[in-house]
Amino acid sequence: MALGVAYRGTAYLGWQSQPGGRTVQDALEQALAAFIGQPVSTLCAGRTDAGVHAYNQVVHLDSPVEREPFSWVRGTNRFLPPDIAVQWAAAVPPDFHARNHARGRRYRYLLLESPVRPALEAGRVGWVFRPLDAQAMRAAAAHLIGEHDFSSFRSSECQARSPVKQMRAIEISRHGAYWRFGFDGSAFLHHMVRNLMGCLIAVGSGRQSPDWMAQVLAARDRDAAAPTFAPDGLYFCGPYYDAHLGLPQQVPAMDAPV
Amino acid sequence: MALGVAYRGTAYLGWQSQPGGRTVQDALEQALAAFIGQPVSTLCAGRTDAGVHAYNQVVHLDSPVEREPFSWVRGTNRFLPPDIAVQWAAAVPPDFHARNHARGRRYRYLLLESPVRPALEAGRVGWVFRPLDAQAMRAAAAHLIGEHDFSSFRSSECQARSPVKQMRAIEISRHGAYWRFGFDGSAFLHHMVRNLMGCLIAVGSGRQSPDWMAQVLAARDRDAAAPTFAPDGLYFCGPYYDAHLGLPQQVPAMDAPV
Repeated sequence: MALGVAYRGTAYLGWQSQPGGRTVQDALEQALAAFIGQPVSTLCAGRTDAGVHAYNQVVHLDSPVEREPFSWVRGTNRFLPPDIAVQWAAAVPPDFHARNHARGRRYRYLLLESPVRPALEAGRVGWVFRPLDAQAMRAAAAHLIGEHDFSSFRSSECQARSPVKQMRAIEISRHGAYWRFGFDGSAFLHHMVRNLMGCLIAVGSGRQSPDWMAQVLAARDRDAAAPTFAPDGLYFCGPYYDAHLGLPQQVPAMDAPV
Repeated sequence: MALGVAYRGTAYLGWQSQPGGRTVQDALEQALAAFIGQPVSTLCAGRTDAGVHAYNQVVHLDSPVEREPFSWVRGTNRFLPPDIAVQWAAAVPPDFHARNHARGRRYRYLLLESPVRPALEAGRVGWVFRPLDAQAMRAAAAHLIGEHDFSSFRSSECQARSPVKQMRAIEISRHGAYWRFGFDGSAFLHHMVRNLMGCLIAVGSGRQSPDWMAQVLAARDRDAAAPTFAPDGLYFCGPYYDAHLGLPQQVPAMDAPV
């Protein structure tokens, strides 16, 4: 069985289960256990950090029981806190693996450009008070497209086997005072999007030139990049899989224009 | 001095100060007192209920001290929690009154239409799982435009002197899975927007006809209307004043398309 899960990460220590609890995985597995009446473990497509949100995190589980797909949604949500909800459930082949079978992943970063910090959107958007230059950021982002060694954007705690990943697209758009950054890649290293955001903002605010991004990438050295940007505006949009599996790539909440 | 304040109402018992604290007014007045070093009281343009948000609540205060406008913003925000922030400050004539001088007020309601409850947006959007009909809701809303006795949409706790108010515009638009309802009127009774939303949704989901709204309005009886809808998706967009005062009618956070 595969499930798509949306969550607001603000109150959690990230996805990955920890002895102290207070993670999204712990909350989900407790709710699943309450629904089916026995313990169950899940494996996700992309672990998220503390404070990072997800529209469509995909997990798989080997279920010891049979239920209709929408029963999984409704039954599990009954036991989940308000900031986590299963969005869909689908039967998958027994060998389906949420992480290993993902063909790619998408992330989104929402950024408020305003002289004053956010209040309504606190914890849900990043914030800059200096104006950003879209053309400069797009020129910087162009250097990142393709297959590269992303070591400069990798946290020292990253457990990935290889720092070489394929960046397929970076889209930057503005909606009033909000910026939306979309990242589409084969896979992402630990802190990679937040480190890319730090560098894109350094370029957008004029502290660095667009070509500096190429130098940072070529350095393969974390010290070459800008500081890791805040998790607040980061959303895991979800993985995508071979079409024949028929799994949703979108959930309703993603429709909001920013 | 006038201030524009944005807040997420989820954690508060509404605007109005209460003995137990935990209201937006209490938090604001404590922060102002910490900034200027002495107690100060504020009066707002439109009280909001528990769980209701504001983009641009306007307050006035008689300040015993002189500060530059942006000092008020920065200085007060230093002492405010993350879900409240002063957005602007402006000098106003000594007789300025945030409530009495308002020419009108705008509210917005955000509604997610989805088979599954919101998670990322919990507390920040209303939710319906049945599809809504835009044309039916617009036809129902048309009955409300103009000057009417809105007693049918008034809570029993309402303290307004008269139930007669002028509704200037109701706009209903859809953005993906989100509906946005905009209300523009001279003033609003207690629970009025939430009661209007309950009725609009009754029409939009087909439980009532558009013309039923005219019957509800004519009844001048709270029992004629649908139940009060959830506060979660309700945003006070703010008051508007005579143009010569030069006060902002918008703040950056309102730019988000939904």
